[in-house]
Amino acid sequence: MAKEQQIDITTTAEALAKEFKEHSVAEFFKKNRQMLGLYGKIRSLTTIIHEYVTNSLDACEEANILPEIEIKIDELGPEYYEVTVKDNGPGLTKEVVGKAFGQLLAGTKFHRLMQMRGQQGIGAAGCTMFSQMTTGKPVKVISGTGNGKCFAVEISIDAKTNQPKLSNYKEFKRNFRGVAVRAKFKEVLYKESEQSPLEYIRRTAIANPHVTIKFTDPSGKKHIFKRTSNKIPKKPKAVKPHPKGVTVDDVLSYARSTKAQKVISFLKNDFDRMGAKALEEISKKVNFDLNKDPRSLTWEEAEQIVKAFRETDFLAPSTDTLSPIGEEQIKKSFQTIVKPEFLSVVSRKPKVYAGGFAFQVEVGIGVGGEAGRTLANGEKKAEIMRFANKVPLLFDAGSCAITKAVQSVDWKRYGLKDFENSPVTVFVSLVSVYVPYTGAGKQAVADIDEIVEEIKLALMDSGRRTSRYLAALRKEREKQMRREAFMKYIPEVSSALAKITKVKEDKLKKKLEKLVLDKLKLEELEEKIEKARAEARGKEVKSNAKESN
Amino acid sequence: MAKEQQIDITTTAEALAKEFKEHSVAEFFKKNRQMLGLYGKIRSLTTIIHEYVTNSLDACEEANILPEIEIKIDELGPEYYEVTVKDNGPGLTKEVVGKAFGQLLAGTKFHRLMQMRGQQGIGAAGCTMFSQMTTGKPVKVISGTGNGKCFAVEISIDAKTNQPKLSNYKEFKRNFRGVAVRAKFKEVLYKESEQSPLEYIRRTAIANPHVTIKFTDPSGKKHIFKRTSNKIPKKPKAVKPHPKGVTVDDVLSYARSTKAQKVISFLKNDFDRMGAKALEEISKKVNFDLNKDPRSLTWEEAEQIVKAFRETDFLAPSTDTLSPIGEEQIKKSFQTIVKPEFLSVVSRKPKVYAGGFAFQVEVGIGVGGEAGRTLANGEKKAEIMRFANKVPLLFDAGSCAITKAVQSVDWKRYGLKDFENSPVTVFVSLVSVYVPYTGAGKQAVADIDEIVEEIKLALMDSGRRTSRYLAALRKEREKQMRREAFMKYIPEVSSALAKITKVKEDKLKKKLEKLVLDKLKLEELEEKIEKARAEARGKEVKSNAKESN
Repeated sequence: MAKEQQIDITTTAEALAKEFKEHSVAEFFKKNRQMLGLYGKIRSLTTIIHEYVTNSLDACEEANILPEIEIKIDELGPEYYEVTVKDNGPGLTKEVVGKAFGQLLAGTKFHRLMQMRGQQGIGAAGCTMFSQMTTGKPVKVISGTGNGKCFAVEISIDAKTNQPKLSNYKEFKRNFRGVAVRAKFKEVLYKESEQSPLEYIRRTAIANPHVTIKFTDPSGKKHIFKRTSNKIPKKPKAVKPHPKGVTVDDVLSYARSTKAQKVISFLKNDFDRMGAKALEEISKKVNFDLNKDPRSLTWEEAEQIVKAFRETDFLAPSTDTLSPIGEEQIKKSFQTIVKPEFLSVVSRKPKVYAGGFAFQVEVGIGVGGEAGRTLANGEKKAEIMRFANKVPLLFDAGSCAITKAVQSVDWKRYGLKDFENSPVTVFVSLVSVYVPYTGAGKQAVADIDEIVEEIKLALMDSGRRTSRYLAALRKEREKQMRREAFMKYIPEVSSALAKITKVKEDKLKKKLEKLVLDKLKLEELEEKIEKARAEARGKEVKSNAKESN
Repeated sequence: MAKEQQIDITTTAEALAKEFKEHSVAEFFKKNRQMLGLYGKIRSLTTIIHEYVTNSLDACEEANILPEIEIKIDELGPEYYEVTVKDNGPGLTKEVVGKAFGQLLAGTKFHRLMQMRGQQGIGAAGCTMFSQMTTGKPVKVISGTGNGKCFAVEISIDAKTNQPKLSNYKEFKRNFRGVAVRAKFKEVLYKESEQSPLEYIRRTAIANPHVTIKFTDPSGKKHIFKRTSNKIPKKPKAVKPHPKGVTVDDVLSYARSTKAQKVISFLKNDFDRMGAKALEEISKKVNFDLNKDPRSLTWEEAEQIVKAFRETDFLAPSTDTLSPIGEEQIKKSFQTIVKPEFLSVVSRKPKVYAGGFAFQVEVGIGVGGEAGRTLANGEKKAEIMRFANKVPLLFDAGSCAITKAVQSVDWKRYGLKDFENSPVTVFVSLVSVYVPYTGAGKQAVADIDEIVEEIKLALMDSGRRTSRYLAALRKEREKQMRREAFMKYIPEVSSALAKITKVKEDKLKKKLEKLVLDKLKLEELEEKIEKARAEARGKEVKSNAKESN
């Protein structure tokens, strides 16, 4: 072949082999920081706030503490800011603080199946890397566990090895419990917009009514979001994997790290909803001895187990591990912060996706009042607020399951003829033991069918209530307009009549007004009678139909 | 404080510390495989084909080989397939084959600034992990470098350590050059759709006219996409970082790994476009000795360098490192595969984003013929084909800079009144030394302003040509309709006239037809004269304007 001769000697297999290198995950995310949401000046700053705030809220929730978070953003120069976030959580020990802020993929959340805001162990360390990349400075962390002793330390990351570097460690006395982090960033910009830290904080407050957030923006203005509820949300529980949700590979990797000595006890202890009856059924379905060491399970044997799982009935995954926001709480914060004219909140029952992951959807539709986005020219547009595990999602709406679900609803059927241009706020909250984000930046939920469908059902349910309200509103408005139309002419008519009849104008006016009101009341009454008659007819038709059957 | 007492003893700082664990990048992507595009049955299969095909094309391109790729997908059971991809590239050595297919973040591409399809060293190893997770089986790889010796090996990944595991290594004699990979996958599904492997391959052929792909689908049907060009694309070159595109952090990390002994030679050798004049300017702007060891540079010194870079004039980044598809090539493959009635292709000049990264945009707008998406009911919809470094992007359109640019164009102005429902195919190709993907799955380009703007300009340029064509088409159609309207009545009229005048009907018919055609020609002539007059008037106005100035 002629083309053989064209082969470039510098790029043969051997030459390519020389170029082959390995990289740390820190280097990977340093090069691809857009994957962590750390790109774009405004977005980066919001992402930083997001990472620190979610860590604080998770820590408080686990320790059963009503969170109180102070956030401060200071402008140090053009596109150069300092961010301070202080919480009243349980604090961090000296041993883990380095890993928490200085090592990617290290944390308490990655290996647990549990409804938490964070789930990857990347966020805060990603911010440290970003600070370091743009300013060369470490982040400063102060932590106290409330026993009078505190420590301060500066943390950076060695990107080549993905290991934390600690410096200036100091212990001191102060009665402080929690974590305070202060870090400097360049290539960021504070600007109030739909995707700004302020909006992020506002939405966090909406989805977390038990949280108080005090935010000082770069102009020095204080924004205080006080908690509207003193109820600490039910602490989410780690859940064992459900038999219907595991793959062969999962079974093998659990088997490698189990404390059980026999497969039978491994199945019994390490899986959710595993009763004696199920165990018996499974033992009949596999062709090997369940007394063997789980560590010696082969792929084929694990495959038999998963097949048996599929064919056996189990209770659905425990859903008490989920901690939804709750209908009442959503209503409260909606009314405090969005102030709609009408509000319909629907909290669905927990469901399961991919066989084994519990999730729950709550939606709220607010119409009128301050609902909707307000453009600079005062025009109103529909607003979609997306939340996953109580964290607001401000970016990547286009690729999110929640957006897809909202767009799939035929809003015309629910009285919103021009949805996009309506003064409506659609609130969608998804909580799950594992939220399938589309990327490490955790800004969009992958459009898994079961999740999209469940959100759609919730929206349709809430939409029906909204539509009844809108219909009633329309009727009321029509009535109002007719009343106004009548009333408008009363002064003229009564003045003319007064001249003819010599009756006092005032008296005539009052009589005429009464006439109009009576007439409208009569109409209402007639409507009611007509409605009752129609219902009666409906019943008659039904009972006739019954008789004829 | 009352709430202190509520603190859960099991979740104090110490308890949390015990839960702290570290994870490998393989475990991370195993848990979050949706981030690699490995979720959804159809999408996963397309992603697998994508990863193998891009690796093959990159290897061929680097070795100056006209690629010939054979792809086969076999159905082994329900949602269970085997994928085989064979290329005629330079092959892999025994030393690197394990890393290429069995280690995440290992490869030749990560550390080079160069226009390539792959850039992360994740793809093929991600597929190995997916195969292993769903079937427990390793992938099989055969490689030969064309010297008569080949080897076969089976590869899997140790997720805990992110290290490759090789087994069944065998050498044998065969005159084969290239790499063949065969792997089994469950939880995937072959289905012809807009996001299927077939569509992926079709679009790969459109953007890579020099490639021949033979694809055998699970039903045994062969789809052959023959190359329409024998021209091997210019080999992309690795480029040195441009001074305007580097951060302080970049300078420091380059300084740590340079071969130079002095900062001055480091600057001279390790950056693009660094001339003697620029070096002199920089040396005046920094307050330290440029003869010092680059490894001893401090953050402050590196900051001075970057500041000096910003204040110094440099030539724009070398753009000869880019390898665009080319206007002619786009036209050829468009005409072969999309077959539009009208086609307008625009190839823009290379530009630079974020100061230092060269990129280039090419667009094509095809109207009529087979352009557009055809729905099941035969209706036509607009189709957007997105490409980044010649790789088709089939997913996550909603969050992509290309989609954003297409949507930002006011298509009405270009004669497409109802863009969404027009028979139009919009082709957008972006090539760059570094494509800023939004995620590791590389399905969408981050919406960086410079990139969106450049795509929009290209589309508007192409749109203007399309609009001229559409206007001419409309005029032609109108003329056609008038001609047809006249012609329709000629038989009747001539028959009636024949009766009255006794002249032969045939003769009358011919005369009347000539009359109509002459009339239309006359109109055309008048139009031309009018146009010429208008132009002349325009010139007159201009020259008058000149004189009066």
